[in-house]
Amino acid sequence: MTIEWGQEAARRLERLAGLSEPGPGVSRLPFTPQHRAALDLLTGWMGDAGLSVELDDAGTLVGRLDGPVGAGTFYLGSHQDSVREGGAYDGIMGVVLSIVALEKLRCEGVALPFAVEVLAFADEEGVRFPTALIGSRALASSYDPDVLDMADADGITLREAMTGFGLDPARIPELARPRDTALGYLETHIEQGPVLEAAQEALGIVTAICGIERHAIRVTGATGHAGTLPMEGRRDALVGAAALVAEVRRLAMETPGLRGTVGALSIRPNVVNAVPREAVLTAEFRSARDTDRQAAGRAIHDFAAALARHEGLRIDIERTYVQPAQPCDADLSRALRASVVDCGGLGLELPSGATHDASAMADLCPIAMLFVRCRGGVSHSPEEYVNPADLDMAIRAIARLLAILR
Amino acid sequence: MTIEWGQEAARRLERLAGLSEPGPGVSRLPFTPQHRAALDLLTGWMGDAGLSVELDDAGTLVGRLDGPVGAGTFYLGSHQDSVREGGAYDGIMGVVLSIVALEKLRCEGVALPFAVEVLAFADEEGVRFPTALIGSRALASSYDPDVLDMADADGITLREAMTGFGLDPARIPELARPRDTALGYLETHIEQGPVLEAAQEALGIVTAICGIERHAIRVTGATGHAGTLPMEGRRDALVGAAALVAEVRRLAMETPGLRGTVGALSIRPNVVNAVPREAVLTAEFRSARDTDRQAAGRAIHDFAAALARHEGLRIDIERTYVQPAQPCDADLSRALRASVVDCGGLGLELPSGATHDASAMADLCPIAMLFVRCRGGVSHSPEEYVNPADLDMAIRAIARLLAILR
Repeated sequence: MTIEWGQEAARRLERLAGLSEPGPGVSRLPFTPQHRAALDLLTGWMGDAGLSVELDDAGTLVGRLDGPVGAGTFYLGSHQDSVREGGAYDGIMGVVLSIVALEKLRCEGVALPFAVEVLAFADEEGVRFPTALIGSRALASSYDPDVLDMADADGITLREAMTGFGLDPARIPELARPRDTALGYLETHIEQGPVLEAAQEALGIVTAICGIERHAIRVTGATGHAGTLPMEGRRDALVGAAALVAEVRRLAMETPGLRGTVGALSIRPNVVNAVPREAVLTAEFRSARDTDRQAAGRAIHDFAAALARHEGLRIDIERTYVQPAQPCDADLSRALRASVVDCGGLGLELPSGATHDASAMADLCPIAMLFVRCRGGVSHSPEEYVNPADLDMAIRAIARLLAILR
Repeated sequence: MTIEWGQEAARRLERLAGLSEPGPGVSRLPFTPQHRAALDLLTGWMGDAGLSVELDDAGTLVGRLDGPVGAGTFYLGSHQDSVREGGAYDGIMGVVLSIVALEKLRCEGVALPFAVEVLAFADEEGVRFPTALIGSRALASSYDPDVLDMADADGITLREAMTGFGLDPARIPELARPRDTALGYLETHIEQGPVLEAAQEALGIVTAICGIERHAIRVTGATGHAGTLPMEGRRDALVGAAALVAEVRRLAMETPGLRGTVGALSIRPNVVNAVPREAVLTAEFRSARDTDRQAAGRAIHDFAAALARHEGLRIDIERTYVQPAQPCDADLSRALRASVVDCGGLGLELPSGATHDASAMADLCPIAMLFVRCRGGVSHSPEEYVNPADLDMAIRAIARLLAILR
């Protein structure tokens, strides 16, 4: 019998998609009944793959396949949670494909020369609480217990939610893994972008997780009657904001690999016949190259200062967030690329514009990421879709990587 | 005894400013107890100036000074109402200065060779009901009875509000004045802009009331993750909107006398890490020259079409409002200018960017407008302020105009 692993994964993902709050798409937030139901399904499939299963005190479901004594552990996985009204693939697909790949190796009688753990992290999206990555940070010793006091929209703290889920958050520090036995971490995830689809490739190898910086900008001018205020001498906050939008885009277009976005903008008083007095906007830059990102951040500050002088505006601009790029491990990524090529792929390389649990796991061990093509590049939407044939190729690539790792 | 007419007008305006709903500045909406209280004060002062007073069925307080039989009537005035949290001068100042100018002429024993009516219109701002200018339109035969069915925020129709104020709106058509006896209309108003202040002139003569056109614009692109969507191929609605903002400004800067404003703009989804999918904005052009305004309107439509093609966006743009420019009467304005010069002014000429009752009165008779400098060009704000010396010069100019008109 030939098992169609891709079809099997698709069926499992469809069952998991049913574990959602009511409403469009998938809403599976951490430490909820939907989370519990997903863990029950995953536990069963982990057992089918020969893994021993445990829920750790950070809410990570850990399926372990022991290896030779002293050989160390290789980690696989991703996160179980979705955004609100999200899709059936973001996060959870990486967990399912890892389990299925191990089940495939078991069926084929392949014994690995190291232990493997499949990790289903509780919370990567950070939708319920204003924090995320608690599971991967616990393993990588970068967990901050202060986050336990953060509350969700109903006033329930993370500590209360975890305790109510049967966990003992006081014991999270004990979850830290020793670095000397952590061989590596492979996260498989949908691309969340259109690059693979445009290239007609099922799989891609992530070179780095992009660094991010965000700037909060407030442009202050002077309002006035749109009919009575002459053009000369106007201090129009929206004219200033529009120039910033154009400059963010220009900077990103002229620098390969740099992404620049003004995602949020609002103006006051915001009426048809009044010159805008104030514009509040954000500017975000992402790049796999920190120097490019930092240069863009400096350039937009310089541009804002010159614009303020030229237009008679006040422009307050502050960098509110920065996260350095996280390169994937060269050796592990080379092995992953070889595995993809062995499965018939081109081994296309691309950066990850989004953050992942792998960003946190990089503090523990070498990381690699396998991207899977998603239709239209769409994620965080009920429209998320991955072709079963692509799921199948990803399963084979994961299994191949495990088989060739020494 | 020398009466300080400017100080007297300032005192009267201060008393009228007290007739307001509670809150900052002046809120005196039509057909309210505050409106009634203002009419009571105005009625007394009209009597002092020798006028016979009547409230017409459109809510206009009419103070009449009879002239020789068959000599016709010259009209003076403005509106009594303010915006919400507005100032003490916009509108009501033109009523008070007209009354004081007639009182000054009476004190000086000047008899006019025509009748005069001072008009205090009920509603020019259009704040309470989604219509305005009912009083001036009634006189000019352009009144539309359909507006009586419009309701305010409390569901009270204009008809109910007027009836409750003791008026009989069914009789408004009887208010239409015969054109052959209407000699002209002079409206005195604060400038609502900074031109006179910048020129260090108290008074200005309005050349024309600017025409207006407004465009509603919807830019539709495609959203996506700010990190995962490459710059190439993005269809960013805000990038398109920013280009439109810059173009509206460029068109207005390159055309003398044209004013172009994007006053309202909002985007969706409006979050820091998502490419904006949709931007909704307004574009407004005003000019005393209709051809310039129309050319700008056509230019922004052409620009939007080219931009949509270039950026892969859909841009829906619709002209939602148009009002032609209303030139002031050349002869009457020349006489007004001579009066201002006689009072020591330069006779500076400027367009009115805002609409006034004079726009409607132009359907009845020749119009002229006298602008009075206001501090900082500010209007529609508790900060509105006119210097008593400027009030005094305006009173003298109005009286002078009446004295020299034949």
